[in-house]
Amino acid sequence: VGAAVEVFGTVDALAEHADLLAGVRADEVSAKDAAALSETVTPQGLVAVCLMPAPRLESVLTPSARLVAALVEPNDPGNVGTVIRTADAAGADAVVLVGGVDAFNGKAVRASAGSVLHIPIVTADLAALLAASSAAGLSTLATSGAAADTLDGLVDDGALRRPTLWLFGSEAHGLSADVLAAADRAVRIPIHGRAESLNLAAAAAVCLYASARAQRDR
Amino acid sequence: VGAAVEVFGTVDALAEHADLLAGVRADEVSAKDAAALSETVTPQGLVAVCLMPAPRLESVLTPSARLVAALVEPNDPGNVGTVIRTADAAGADAVVLVGGVDAFNGKAVRASAGSVLHIPIVTADLAALLAASSAAGLSTLATSGAAADTLDGLVDDGALRRPTLWLFGSEAHGLSADVLAAADRAVRIPIHGRAESLNLAAAAAVCLYASARAQRDR
Repeated sequence: VGAAVEVFGTVDALAEHADLLAGVRADEVSAKDAAALSETVTPQGLVAVCLMPAPRLESVLTPSARLVAALVEPNDPGNVGTVIRTADAAGADAVVLVGGVDAFNGKAVRASAGSVLHIPIVTADLAALLAASSAAGLSTLATSGAAADTLDGLVDDGALRRPTLWLFGSEAHGLSADVLAAADRAVRIPIHGRAESLNLAAAAAVCLYASARAQRDR
Repeated sequence: VGAAVEVFGTVDALAEHADLLAGVRADEVSAKDAAALSETVTPQGLVAVCLMPAPRLESVLTPSARLVAALVEPNDPGNVGTVIRTADAAGADAVVLVGGVDAFNGKAVRASAGSVLHIPIVTADLAALLAASSAAGLSTLATSGAAADTLDGLVDDGALRRPTLWLFGSEAHGLSADVLAAADRAVRIPIHGRAESLNLAAAAAVCLYASARAQRDR
């Protein structure tokens, strides 16, 4: 995919994936060594050393950005990877991580199903993120179960058509009062049943797809 | 919550949660025994024996049902629990499991964050489910990355306002050709970026919330 610098694989794995390996230095290793290099219980027999992309905030939060997702202190690498995959699918321009789990944690990379290599992923502190968002003309929407405005309301009043930075909080604690106060608006996903809240990745999916649809609506 | 038959807890846990335990038989156990009864790494010190609710298909797929989610052969208990939580939040009438992981698997129960006790969960075979759905007047929508119709298209043409049974396939294989052929319509969530697909729980969140919004729209 262009990011791989060097690959280690078993004889079988190197042969099976020969089409992916053109132009990459590939070394043969035993099945035992391939397993030792992998973090998974059932390794694929192929491990790549990759350059970690590290785009700068200013290069992704530009006036042409339409949709950006930021995770503030997420705890669960599976959720981080799933949000990156969903942001990619929804056509977002970038994902920003403010503290919390590393997006290049092995679990997060696997949950992203390749999307860590499709979409720019930036780490930033909150103040820099909000300043860059404002400078780029993005509207900053913060999710909160206690917000007065609902996502449906923002669809109806046209707010979701604007270029948007979504802020999502941690699984356990959501966003702090400071973050909510700093955002342009706080938004609540309506809960029609008896669940107290949505899982972080599910909430992000609902919000990012609502934005994608609103921005593409005639 | 009414489902607990008997509770085992440490002295501290029983004291801390005394308000939850009124009317339930509660036995004191050592911290070691409480940990042995639990499946988690950091046990809460409290374990309850619960009656497993087992509603019948006919009691949930009635003509008054508006929104039902069915998982066909799901593999991942975390996804099953998350979909149950999301279905509850979206105001769905029930979740149906057709094969795959048990909804009362410990991981699924934890991922549901209590929603396994909020919303009826039914196990059924596919033929019985489709027959009951049809008898109840529900429109059956099957998700498929290869479908011609998109979710946005179904919102626009009003199809999502109808009472709906959503069918979601397994993480690895999606729905089989037979299931897609048996559904009223196959539906694709639009992929605007480079991701190949969405995670099952994210896809379900997008579809169930699109239905919830369409059904509540004036």
